Amino acid sequence: MCDTCGCSETKETKIIDVNQSLLKSNEEAADGNRRHFTEKGILAINLISSPGSGKTTLLEKTIESLHEHIAIGVLEGDIETELDEERIRAKGVPAVQLTTGGACHLESPLVHKGFHSLESQLKGKKLDVLFIENVGNLVCPSFFDLGEHIRVVLISVPEGHDKPLKYPKAIKTSQVLIITKSDLGPYFDFDIDKIKKDALSLNPSLNVLVTSAKTGAGMEEWFEFLKSMLNKGDFS
Amino acid sequence: MCDTCGCSETKETKIIDVNQSLLKSNEEAADGNRRHFTEKGILAINLISSPGSGKTTLLEKTIESLHEHIAIGVLEGDIETELDEERIRAKGVPAVQLTTGGACHLESPLVHKGFHSLESQLKGKKLDVLFIENVGNLVCPSFFDLGEHIRVVLISVPEGHDKPLKYPKAIKTSQVLIITKSDLGPYFDFDIDKIKKDALSLNPSLNVLVTSAKTGAGMEEWFEFLKSMLNKGDFS
Repeated sequence: MCDTCGCSETKETKIIDVNQSLLKSNEEAADGNRRHFTEKGILAINLISSPGSGKTTLLEKTIESLHEHIAIGVLEGDIETELDEERIRAKGVPAVQLTTGGACHLESPLVHKGFHSLESQLKGKKLDVLFIENVGNLVCPSFFDLGEHIRVVLISVPEGHDKPLKYPKAIKTSQVLIITKSDLGPYFDFDIDKIKKDALSLNPSLNVLVTSAKTGAGMEEWFEFLKSMLNKGDFS
Repeated sequence: MCDTCGCSETKETKIIDVNQSLLKSNEEAADGNRRHFTEKGILAINLISSPGSGKTTLLEKTIESLHEHIAIGVLEGDIETELDEERIRAKGVPAVQLTTGGACHLESPLVHKGFHSLESQLKGKKLDVLFIENVGNLVCPSFFDLGEHIRVVLISVPEGHDKPLKYPKAIKTSQVLIITKSDLGPYFDFDIDKIKKDALSLNPSLNVLVTSAKTGAGMEEWFEFLKSMLNKGDFS
């Protein structure tokens, strides 16, 4: 370390302390959220990915296919704008925008608040699944438990097959990896076997699905996964 | 706010205070870096984008085209792995990997340290351009000045044209927006006019370039931009 850096062990320690405290208070609120969702029989799913990997599109297609049989609600995380909430509402399901105002990830207290706001739209109707679409960011959201039962990470073909090794935390903390935009395979040097192998080496119990919202490839498998989770009943 | 959230105004204020202090100390180190680069006549460029938008590919193509006439050095930011440093070194230019060990963005002290390590590889040779490839993340890196003279943000066609409005900070703080993978235009509902309009509404002095590293489209314009900056001489 040199003087110009202004970087010392003491300062780093202080920052780590505050981050630990922030994570701890988020953790407590997350446990509260999870209890809340479980008691109400709602399966909560946290969707994490880079910007533009296809989270909102996955939700649109999921709603189109399952909406008639499964009651879906959505919390839409974004730094600014309500563009995604509008896309989801246009599909006829209740949605609440969670605007972080600059923050790079959702935290449990905001999810808790958003869920109460969503409930007020339901007029007593029971939800089966709550999707929480996180801020587009493959890094920070993986550090914050929101009280979900399942964490789903999306990586699109155009992003490249090297992403699991470069962003291991998102892979390690998720139960499902959805590879999106598989129809673009022919235009990229994207090695499906390699990404699967790398992801499973980080998290051997990960479910890996290869999908294209455009062609519909792999989407049935995703819907079946959701239905099997709901049929299982005990999400906790 | 409700009890389960555990979220209070006091706690938020404390976190904001620490973040402000972190940003301030980064700012001071950034000013030191910039002075350092300017005194040595090195143009420093900070590349920001989501994972997989094409930062490393842009660097590879830039090195291939300009390396013989312009002395280029690279600092490669990543959370884990040294995959990108290896790609850059394979092109024959000096590179140092900056591994953040979990952190979602580069900060100035690490850049300072990395630059000294890079200098030790140069054996007295003078650099013309220092590229600093940030961690793949469109959010957090935009809050941290690294002492660069120019900030370049990349958005790839597969990410979608709605990204400037959703991630305004990266657009507002950059001097150049490079739209990458333009060859994929036919496969996406990507509106070039809209992304340009939205980006310029946030930052009217932004230079917008539309490129494809695959076909070479727009790359000459990028090289010309770099050369014109170097010819100008005064980067500060």
